[in-house]
Amino acid sequence: MAEEKDRVEINEVVLRDGLQNEPDFVATEEKIRLADGLSRTGVRRLEVSSFVSPKAIPNLRDAADVLQGITRVPGVRYTALVPNVRGAERALESSVDEVNLVMSIGERHNLANMRMTCDQSLAQFKEIMTAIAGSSFFVNGTLATTFGCPFEGRQSVERVLWAIDIYREMGIEGITIADTIGVANPRQVGELTTTIFRHHPDLQLTLHLHNTRDMGLANALAAYDAGIRSFDSALGGIGGCPYAPGATGNVCTEDLVHMFHACGIDTGVDLSALIGLSCELPALLGHATPGYVMKAGTSDRVYA
Amino acid sequence: MAEEKDRVEINEVVLRDGLQNEPDFVATEEKIRLADGLSRTGVRRLEVSSFVSPKAIPNLRDAADVLQGITRVPGVRYTALVPNVRGAERALESSVDEVNLVMSIGERHNLANMRMTCDQSLAQFKEIMTAIAGSSFFVNGTLATTFGCPFEGRQSVERVLWAIDIYREMGIEGITIADTIGVANPRQVGELTTTIFRHHPDLQLTLHLHNTRDMGLANALAAYDAGIRSFDSALGGIGGCPYAPGATGNVCTEDLVHMFHACGIDTGVDLSALIGLSCELPALLGHATPGYVMKAGTSDRVYA
Repeated sequence: MAEEKDRVEINEVVLRDGLQNEPDFVATEEKIRLADGLSRTGVRRLEVSSFVSPKAIPNLRDAADVLQGITRVPGVRYTALVPNVRGAERALESSVDEVNLVMSIGERHNLANMRMTCDQSLAQFKEIMTAIAGSSFFVNGTLATTFGCPFEGRQSVERVLWAIDIYREMGIEGITIADTIGVANPRQVGELTTTIFRHHPDLQLTLHLHNTRDMGLANALAAYDAGIRSFDSALGGIGGCPYAPGATGNVCTEDLVHMFHACGIDTGVDLSALIGLSCELPALLGHATPGYVMKAGTSDRVYA
Repeated sequence: MAEEKDRVEINEVVLRDGLQNEPDFVATEEKIRLADGLSRTGVRRLEVSSFVSPKAIPNLRDAADVLQGITRVPGVRYTALVPNVRGAERALESSVDEVNLVMSIGERHNLANMRMTCDQSLAQFKEIMTAIAGSSFFVNGTLATTFGCPFEGRQSVERVLWAIDIYREMGIEGITIADTIGVANPRQVGELTTTIFRHHPDLQLTLHLHNTRDMGLANALAAYDAGIRSFDSALGGIGGCPYAPGATGNVCTEDLVHMFHACGIDTGVDLSALIGLSCELPALLGHATPGYVMKAGTSDRVYA
């Protein structure tokens, strides 16, 4: 058994970041089945959906129904994205354990994605925090485009630190730094992580990666080596942001877990169960998925 | 300008390891055009073909013609695979600067791939060294399946060190450790590299990676951090070994160079020229290629 401090926590985001960008709606009962399968693999967090406007992301219009339909597994933190006060109110009526607020570090991407300036997003966060005051929610805040904005390019470290300070002052407990469009490189990830932990040694920091330029796994390992122990990832490597040109799939959960296990890093996740679920995705979605290990098998595979 | 010791050398192997596994023969003049394009991108080594039996690998039956047709670029080392004495004799009639001998660490893969036991391979190496004695060839020796054999699994460090000792005793100057079937992980790569350099601090060591389980770039960076400065890679990420079940494409040259550059590591290679050549591959081969950056653009890409 690995020591707790060395162990990686997987936040499975396929149901939210994965499905939001699919061309077709996935039936509510299929989402529930997938959520229940995933929650039994040993993942510690499961982002089940988003309380976003059904008009903005029709694929996730059944957030409440999915949350109501799942069978809760003890030890799993169920989380949902909350983009505004209306979303927070819907979250309060649901059984989620965690809400995830999102603002892009890049002003122009925030305008495209959230239809707000960063100041407006932060003002909205305050309203959300007021709306959910007294609830038992764990509050996580995501900094989208932390490693680069599709419209503005590389963002400054100072701006990231500024946003983390504001998030924490508002009472946001966990923070996710997100490489929304897959531009981060391992050196950048290692250096930024080290800098953030120097300022906030106790921070519950999660890394959200996309594999757009195939640096996802290298970035994850660089983050691990710099101290990050919590990772967003999506089964099969599906996903993408509808408001970010050039965005492609999330880092693939089973490929990430496979690498960590091969490196001797514990995740608490049953890899073969994950691969089994991933193998069902192409039929569910009607197209092939980007993951590698579900096609190649694990690295200890031996042929007769 | 980076210091020489920090600089990465790319050995472009698309013409050999890339094309050998293609379903269709690529015309000799197309190979020559591709070789000439690649030799002008700044790569330091170019594996042009293999002097293998035309019956074994029909795709490479035009090795001599390709070598005769290319326009040599000063500073580029032209290399060819030499599987046996007959191949060495053909190499002597050609203009290559380097010959690359290959044996698999795994006995069973060596039998499948070379149709010889390891002892027979090493005996053949001796004959080859005798045949080419007095030539100006740089002699490189590849250890295939260094990180794992498809039939026998993980190979011992002792066996790798044993093979390196034998290679060097024979006068083989450079050594390539090859993850033929893409099973290596970054920790394994880092540890084995460190061990090899502890025994052979002066060794000209090259790493050959396949991206079968998406760990190619993470493995390359781990190797760089452990001291390796020379990497095999294939344009577009194509390739695979016809005698290794489950083998898929080589680590992709432009994705590898892109990551190194993003990390501030110099390769001396013109990335945009590489991407341009990679974009021509799908039309040449008649199918899509696995590379990422040729689809997504570089990480500093900004949308209007």
